Amino acid sequence: MDKFDHLLSPTIRKIKASEIRELLKIIGKSKEIISFAGGIPDPKYFPKKELAEIAKEVIEDFGDRALQYSETMGVYECRKAVAEFIYRTKGVKTDPDNVIITTGSQQAIDMIARAFIVPGDKVITESPTYLASLGLFRAQGADVVGIKLDDHGMKTLALEEELKKLKSIDALPKFIYVIPTAQNPSGVTMSLERRKHVMELAGKYDLIVVEDDPYSFFLFDNRAEATPLKYLDKEDRVIYISTASKILAPGIRIGWIMPPKELVRRLELLKQYMDLHSPTLNQYIFARALDKGVVDRHIEVVRRVYKEKRDHMIAGLEKYFPNYTWFSRPIGGLFIFTYIFKEDFDAGALLEKAINEYKVAYVPGKSFHPDGGGANSMRLNFSYPSINEIYEGVRRLAELIKNA
Amino acid sequence: MDKFDHLLSPTIRKIKASEIRELLKIIGKSKEIISFAGGIPDPKYFPKKELAEIAKEVIEDFGDRALQYSETMGVYECRKAVAEFIYRTKGVKTDPDNVIITTGSQQAIDMIARAFIVPGDKVITESPTYLASLGLFRAQGADVVGIKLDDHGMKTLALEEELKKLKSIDALPKFIYVIPTAQNPSGVTMSLERRKHVMELAGKYDLIVVEDDPYSFFLFDNRAEATPLKYLDKEDRVIYISTASKILAPGIRIGWIMPPKELVRRLELLKQYMDLHSPTLNQYIFARALDKGVVDRHIEVVRRVYKEKRDHMIAGLEKYFPNYTWFSRPIGGLFIFTYIFKEDFDAGALLEKAINEYKVAYVPGKSFHPDGGGANSMRLNFSYPSINEIYEGVRRLAELIKNA
Repeated sequence: MDKFDHLLSPTIRKIKASEIRELLKIIGKSKEIISFAGGIPDPKYFPKKELAEIAKEVIEDFGDRALQYSETMGVYECRKAVAEFIYRTKGVKTDPDNVIITTGSQQAIDMIARAFIVPGDKVITESPTYLASLGLFRAQGADVVGIKLDDHGMKTLALEEELKKLKSIDALPKFIYVIPTAQNPSGVTMSLERRKHVMELAGKYDLIVVEDDPYSFFLFDNRAEATPLKYLDKEDRVIYISTASKILAPGIRIGWIMPPKELVRRLELLKQYMDLHSPTLNQYIFARALDKGVVDRHIEVVRRVYKEKRDHMIAGLEKYFPNYTWFSRPIGGLFIFTYIFKEDFDAGALLEKAINEYKVAYVPGKSFHPDGGGANSMRLNFSYPSINEIYEGVRRLAELIKNA
Repeated sequence: MDKFDHLLSPTIRKIKASEIRELLKIIGKSKEIISFAGGIPDPKYFPKKELAEIAKEVIEDFGDRALQYSETMGVYECRKAVAEFIYRTKGVKTDPDNVIITTGSQQAIDMIARAFIVPGDKVITESPTYLASLGLFRAQGADVVGIKLDDHGMKTLALEEELKKLKSIDALPKFIYVIPTAQNPSGVTMSLERRKHVMELAGKYDLIVVEDDPYSFFLFDNRAEATPLKYLDKEDRVIYISTASKILAPGIRIGWIMPPKELVRRLELLKQYMDLHSPTLNQYIFARALDKGVVDRHIEVVRRVYKEKRDHMIAGLEKYFPNYTWFSRPIGGLFIFTYIFKEDFDAGALLEKAINEYKVAYVPGKSFHPDGGGANSMRLNFSYPSINEIYEGVRRLAELIKNA
């Protein structure tokens, strides 16, 4: 036990190192390793020139405000630009006064965890689900119940059964957390029918739905279904969260949260204690990048680039992976998920060998599964590696799988 | 009760609106009101030109990194620049790997609150103390014990008594939170003797000391005593936190935390769940502003400007305030604290009248006092208003006090 461990709260004791982040640290140090870990955009395409210009302009034009403290909710210009963006791209009408700017969507998820969870609470997520959300909900003390996915997203009949069961033992969840479009890690997108079913169940059991939506802005298939739950939300019970990380750049750490009206003030007060407000400068940069069309143009670039990379990864998987594997065919996002149906296959146990001998990295799927399953799965990122690396990395992975 | 109130955690229920922030919202809308509320730097002096240039350069020169995700602790360049800055200005040697970059020091305080406090825990602060720390510790469930101040800072004999008492009932505090230099709100600076006494007591009772140090970089009196507790810390038990908000600009939201070595990894993991990391771009901007001497030059500017403003506020107080008042004579920081010794004087109850009739705003002192006292006190900010406004505002305040 370390020197001050006896003073630590249960929350911080529960936090384990994230495999993704630990991996990133290792593989960053070797050029030889092809990494499918992480969820990192390809920096080659960042609109550097435009952002350099915008950053300069914003400080020169209104540095008195851009360098100063701001309102906790965020500067009005940024909240307005986000509200307009969401209306334009999603058809969701939101008053800028119902938008809170956060430090990436991770902070929005943290705000939700702190606002609702007390130890012992149930929380429902998809299974598998986003690693950092799962870990965070658990650190806050939640008992996370995962609902399995298929090609059409969360199995809402199973959700209905679970809610009925939880209701009968007076243990309804604090909220249902879903990533309906190009889900992380599975790559699956929820059908419209199931989206409606989720909202119907939320209404029936009077629940909050947290819609985490980082990926729906650049879908590879224009006919794809991606109506936000927030759009279907007639009873104002969806907390919608998203981020600039994938549609512009993660390094500015701008995210946002659009909660039901009754929760805005509560979350604002919580955010005030968390960091007073997110960086003013970055908010002005993002607002101007939206207003000048930089974000829209960048979305078209990443849509094209990531679609191509996804296509190549799928082609690689089809070519190299043995027939006892399954992989998702995502319509967006940054990830392909794969299951290896080989007895006792353990992607976690093999990771060290993968990195050291096969020079390829991935995220073992187990840590995305609330029920502890998924040892035979991995998450593969296609946004960061080059096309050559994608083929070569998939080939190496296939070797690893065959020799395991 | 609002729609989802039954789902909220005790933490978020406990959070009340901060008077400072609410005030800021009102007075921002009227030009007539002279505001001594808030703790806002004078934006006239922000090094806008230099920062505009630096922001542009940083994105142009290494946008691939500056716009990308970074390590949770912060980018090495920034942690190194901060470690060097603290060594150069304070004589405190720190490995960059023991520095975590945060989103302002408010986030550092929040990290500490979450890392240690469970409901019912004792926490010791000065009385009065920083409003947002007090509110946050309480929201996390702490029972905050305030130790009174005099002209030499926290009364450490009273601290010793309190610790003895708490020890006897097996309720030692999770930590002692102090702002030793140019304290907010009191403006008082702790003597070297008392600093040593705090560290001696921390050692005796095996306690963590949180040293919040936003103001010590620009002292108005060069002979002033401001040896950091971190410098006196032979047993590695001080968590030192500070911020770029006062020495450069609050809008970039850069702060840092230098914990005992044993706590670095724990806090890093917590930070990862809170927001993955603070904005990469802002870290590079701050690192370069430090390296290029922009921060040092700005410190000289604010030292001069705020010293002049402090002098004028003291001159105004001496001229206009009745003789049944006391006010601090701070050697740094942004605030003067004043007590009005007039029967039943209630600065909180008078605030609305002050704003609406006398057109002057301040922060009532009561909310800074852990024990609920201090109704007859107010905090006056001298960094934001102009010199004319300082005299006129103090004159109006004096009228308010006399007519109360």
